Amino acid sequence: MVSFSSDYTQGAHENIIKRLTETNMEFLAGYGEDTYCASAKEKIKAACEAPEADVYFLVGGTQANQMVISSLLRSYEGVISVVSGHVNTHEAGAIEHAGHKVLALEGVDGKLMPETVRKYITDFYADANHEAAVFPGMVYISHPTEYGTLYTKSELEGLSAVCREFGIPLFLDGARLGYGLMSRGTDVTLPDIARLCDVFYIGGTKVGALCGEALVFTSKNMPAHFSAVVKQKGALLAKGRLLGVQFDTLFTDGLYFEISRNAIEKSDKIRKLFRDRGYKFLIETVTNQIFIVLENSTMQELAKYVTFGFWENVDKDHTAVRFASSWATTDADIAELEAALELLSPQRK
Amino acid sequence: MVSFSSDYTQGAHENIIKRLTETNMEFLAGYGEDTYCASAKEKIKAACEAPEADVYFLVGGTQANQMVISSLLRSYEGVISVVSGHVNTHEAGAIEHAGHKVLALEGVDGKLMPETVRKYITDFYADANHEAAVFPGMVYISHPTEYGTLYTKSELEGLSAVCREFGIPLFLDGARLGYGLMSRGTDVTLPDIARLCDVFYIGGTKVGALCGEALVFTSKNMPAHFSAVVKQKGALLAKGRLLGVQFDTLFTDGLYFEISRNAIEKSDKIRKLFRDRGYKFLIETVTNQIFIVLENSTMQELAKYVTFGFWENVDKDHTAVRFASSWATTDADIAELEAALELLSPQRK
Amino acid sequence: MVSFSSDYTQGAHENIIKRLTETNMEFLAGYGEDTYCASAKEKIKAACEAPEADVYFLVGGTQANQMVISSLLRSYEGVISVVSGHVNTHEAGAIEHAGHKVLALEGVDGKLMPETVRKYITDFYADANHEAAVFPGMVYISHPTEYGTLYTKSELEGLSAVCREFGIPLFLDGARLGYGLMSRGTDVTLPDIARLCDVFYIGGTKVGALCGEALVFTSKNMPAHFSAVVKQKGALLAKGRLLGVQFDTLFTDGLYFEISRNAIEKSDKIRKLFRDRGYKFLIETVTNQIFIVLENSTMQELAKYVTFGFWENVDKDHTAVRFASSWATTDADIAELEAALELLSPQRK
Amino acid sequence: MVSFSSDYTQGAHENIIKRLTETNMEFLAGYGEDTYCASAKEKIKAACEAPEADVYFLVGGTQANQMVISSLLRSYEGVISVVSGHVNTHEAGAIEHAGHKVLALEGVDGKLMPETVRKYITDFYADANHEAAVFPGMVYISHPTEYGTLYTKSELEGLSAVCREFGIPLFLDGARLGYGLMSRGTDVTLPDIARLCDVFYIGGTKVGALCGEALVFTSKNMPAHFSAVVKQKGALLAKGRLLGVQFDTLFTDGLYFEISRNAIEKSDKIRKLFRDRGYKFLIETVTNQIFIVLENSTMQELAKYVTFGFWENVDKDHTAVRFASSWATTDADIAELEAALELLSPQRK
Repeated sequence: MVSFSSDYTQGAHENIIKRLTETNMEFLAGYGEDTYCASAKEKIKAACEAPEADVYFLVGGTQANQMVISSLLRSYEGVISVVSGHVNTHEAGAIEHAGHKVLALEGVDGKLMPETVRKYITDFYADANHEAAVFPGMVYISHPTEYGTLYTKSELEGLSAVCREFGIPLFLDGARLGYGLMSRGTDVTLPDIARLCDVFYIGGTKVGALCGEALVFTSKNMPAHFSAVVKQKGALLAKGRLLGVQFDTLFTDGLYFEISRNAIEKSDKIRKLFRDRGYKFLIETVTNQIFIVLENSTMQELAKYVTFGFWENVDKDHTAVRFASSWATTDADIAELEAALELLSPQRK
Repeated sequence: MVSFSSDYTQGAHENIIKRLTETNMEFLAGYGEDTYCASAKEKIKAACEAPEADVYFLVGGTQANQMVISSLLRSYEGVISVVSGHVNTHEAGAIEHAGHKVLALEGVDGKLMPETVRKYITDFYADANHEAAVFPGMVYISHPTEYGTLYTKSELEGLSAVCREFGIPLFLDGARLGYGLMSRGTDVTLPDIARLCDVFYIGGTKVGALCGEALVFTSKNMPAHFSAVVKQKGALLAKGRLLGVQFDTLFTDGLYFEISRNAIEKSDKIRKLFRDRGYKFLIETVTNQIFIVLENSTMQELAKYVTFGFWENVDKDHTAVRFASSWATTDADIAELEAALELLSPQRK
Repeated sequence: MVSFSSDYTQGAHENIIKRLTETNMEFLAGYGEDTYCASAKEKIKAACEAPEADVYFLVGGTQANQMVISSLLRSYEGVISVVSGHVNTHEAGAIEHAGHKVLALEGVDGKLMPETVRKYITDFYADANHEAAVFPGMVYISHPTEYGTLYTKSELEGLSAVCREFGIPLFLDGARLGYGLMSRGTDVTLPDIARLCDVFYIGGTKVGALCGEALVFTSKNMPAHFSAVVKQKGALLAKGRLLGVQFDTLFTDGLYFEISRNAIEKSDKIRKLFRDRGYKFLIETVTNQIFIVLENSTMQELAKYVTFGFWENVDKDHTAVRFASSWATTDADIAELEAALELLSPQRK
Repeated sequence: MVSFSSDYTQGAHENIIKRLTETNMEFLAGYGEDTYCASAKEKIKAACEAPEADVYFLVGGTQANQMVISSLLRSYEGVISVVSGHVNTHEAGAIEHAGHKVLALEGVDGKLMPETVRKYITDFYADANHEAAVFPGMVYISHPTEYGTLYTKSELEGLSAVCREFGIPLFLDGARLGYGLMSRGTDVTLPDIARLCDVFYIGGTKVGALCGEALVFTSKNMPAHFSAVVKQKGALLAKGRLLGVQFDTLFTDGLYFEISRNAIEKSDKIRKLFRDRGYKFLIETVTNQIFIVLENSTMQELAKYVTFGFWENVDKDHTAVRFASSWATTDADIAELEAALELLSPQRK
């Protein structure tokens, strides 16, 4: 059955499979010291227009978040995030497990506003008892956000300015970064992100790879002996080639951007299917995630034909569900969804 | 200058100083294995009407909170607290430092309502993705709360029922427990607390001791080898007698309750001083903490005569401040405050 | 240049690449809930003759060690290991980072002897002050060991008996388990291991996979909500299929054992090459790792033709180096090594 | 019964009790911000001849060790200690619980030799695979050691030189520092220690105080926001006056040194009692701890008259026991011991 439940239900882009096959029997150094990792890093730095950046490959997103946050914060610092931020809600407490509080602030459409952050930090230092509270030591944002929304360049500049004013890093979780960069509405480029953030990652797992996230430290701030830190958390991959070959492929001839654009185009088609039939959207999004509010009975019937994701309960009769397109979504997949919706539409649309 | 800034600005009750002096040169076993610790434990169990409880002495409140929460939770669990709970706001992230998220819920007058907890836990398990979130593994409350308010017996019974329904412990932070038990309005007794909570502590630091909190595990749930756990966190006192003698004294002839009552009586007099002069209260309290909203200029002038605590900014012209009475507050102290208020009153009351 | 530096210098067995390719575009559930993970688990349980075991896939060995040890130990417990154990020497302190001491005992040929363990635990409990020390809470062994040696069935039975006597789990690190099971001299089978250990893992990374270790909990002792624990440490793979497909392939038609046997056969040929030329062995091994003591000048010359691993300094003129065969080693690789040795042999053998 | 089992079996020096009583009802700031803490810090800095040092008071020794080590090490670093070091053996794994490995090296008479440390660090960096091991990030020593022995000034200079060569701090655990400084044989002064170490502490718990250790950071290396770090570990004392008054008293008119000298004088008398009667010493010590090897039957009989400490089993018929004198030991105590030994001596001496 065709699945729109997430953007990680299928394997890897065919070019990646091909390159893994071609390079399979080469003798390569372990632990990310191989030539493909080196090549991939150079290509990523070029795409970021950040020749002085440090790039490091990790396996997954929660791992990347935990590693960045715990290795850059001091013990008495926490990380500011919007309430709906992935680190605050969907990582089984990974940040706290690493010893740090998530300082969760209210957002707007899943986004953290610069003025919210400035006020929080200003109030913190204005409180005479702040030594007994958790120091704000980093700002974490997701782009796209957990709600599929995007920061504008102006908002990112605002966040960056606040962070630099208070001397704390701005960290951007780019698990779905490609889908943000290729969104029609955005005015944010990869070099913008590299310029405005202190550290971010380019997600592979959800954008064409079997696994892998490319961490980019933009301001000479990669922690010393970072490999030892990664090893210590059990996150150092012996066959680092698995990550190197994948990212080298994704950043050859713009593949990462091309397949991201596919997801956006397909998501537009999905949006249209729902909009044409009068369905209600939980929130307006411009990336590959689409949140629809369904009557529970409709949800159950639709689930017989296609797979999609539970998002949240709306009220006792309605549920918000998620449809995600991806690098791999085809017109045939969309056609299956359309057919399923047609089967529903006589009764309830 | 007389200080009302907190209830820990003076040393220990004279009986404690006397007993420390009298027992000073006795040869006693270390690490809480002495006879005074043993005697104090028996007296506390008797006062709690909980003969099967386990009592353990620790030095301070944040230490007690961290120890209880981290030793009773599983790694993937967090602790539910009201947003204003001490563990969420004033412990420098001690709970997260020990690896656990504080699941902060909205309260009423600083109190966590049973229905809020039930709804949170019910919703948690209803969410299909809850394995990626933090499991609610304990409920933490303060009594009195950080706002000086008190749970009713009915509220405590409600919280206890929810916790038992879901099989998680109810933990009561009693850093100021004496002041709650001796409050005029309360219908909650120490045996009630022992019956309804799985673990709680009887605060000494703020109620007549130089230091010390008496942890009470009420349901055969003291962790195995708890002394090793305490030692491992650097919290095992070599001369445990310091805690044993103090609590043995506090629980001899009802001293703990008697000195707690003094604080309540004195707080009533302080309340009256402010009320008679038309000052505004931030919140109505029935224990030893009184929160007054002052004009900033008044605050600055009053600070020339008596010491009190900053609580929070109200608006640009007003600040909430805290006046705390204690086991040691005298009528002479109150008279000094009255005189200071008189000096202010011609201009602004 | 041909490399014998380790058994993880090449990709994955061709069957694995083939199956990854074939299954690539299938829609599959994430986080290890897919059909290939399920199928692989059943095959592994069958191979272990342990129908009641729980199998869980992780990405790497240090991760597996850290996860097992930290999730099974209580906070005040440490893990017993031989001094040369991987957890004690080559994991950047991952076990301590997770809060636990490695209790390192002397071994024999890299192996921990049952009587050593029994004496240690007996002495521990005999010490009146043991509450201030670290409790022995688990026994960790590697099979093959870090020195390429193997436990006999009798030794494993001895260790298992000690562990069961004291009620602590026996944990076997099988990062190279295949090479141990297929060694000519061994009397230990996979079902023996499943019967005698409480938890162990079957290494994929070093035995034909791109990555992956199959954890086997044999005694209904997989921690509750283990996925949440794994997620919390950043170790939960979104596309769990990557591990499922690989292990499903490795345990189809005995592939795991067949390719392990290849490494053993090739290692015998390598041993012969060195033995025939009079080289000195650091230690006699029966698995895929061979440790040779070379004059430093010989080492430098040989390094021009083939790649091998540094092991340890022997004295100022000699170094121990490691030659590892693997699932992928070919006769052509061996011929290259032979040719290289021939180039050296006139001068120094 | 008179006890020689340790140096923390009695309360506090009478001057301390007197000062605690006198200052008891003063209104003082909390959390170590009071005037007595300030005064005590100045006196300690003067005694150390280290006007630029930072002094911080903590409650206990394990707490101090854990706090210093965990706040100064980076996550991938461990602390070098002699095998018998307190942090390696008697703290229930507190250092590992805080995430760091104790790198235990062999010593001489309980002391770590400079050349041992230099060789270890040199070998570490010479190992090509050292990124997978734990980096040596600090050297920990006890003075007096756990065996009652003392470093010479030359040995301390050697350790200091190694540490500075490799850019890592030298940390001296002075839980019994007074007894080391007042030992007859020593050529080490308190200013020497302040000059040669980067951080150390002056023990109060075992030298005349009810509790308390005075941490001295000598090289502008007190971690930023150290109070927040201390709070986060539950180690910040609300009534810091308890520590301030005690250390202010101990460092008034040389009391700390005077009472330490008493312990040394009394220990000489105890040594003489045993030596005159032909008892065997486990090790020759020059401080307040004396280790005697007793036949088990003698040990049991002697225990009827005086209390002493178990140290270690020697063989099946003999046990090493510890007699400790202290700041409080009197000639009357010694006379009791002598009388007890006389009761034994006819049969076995």
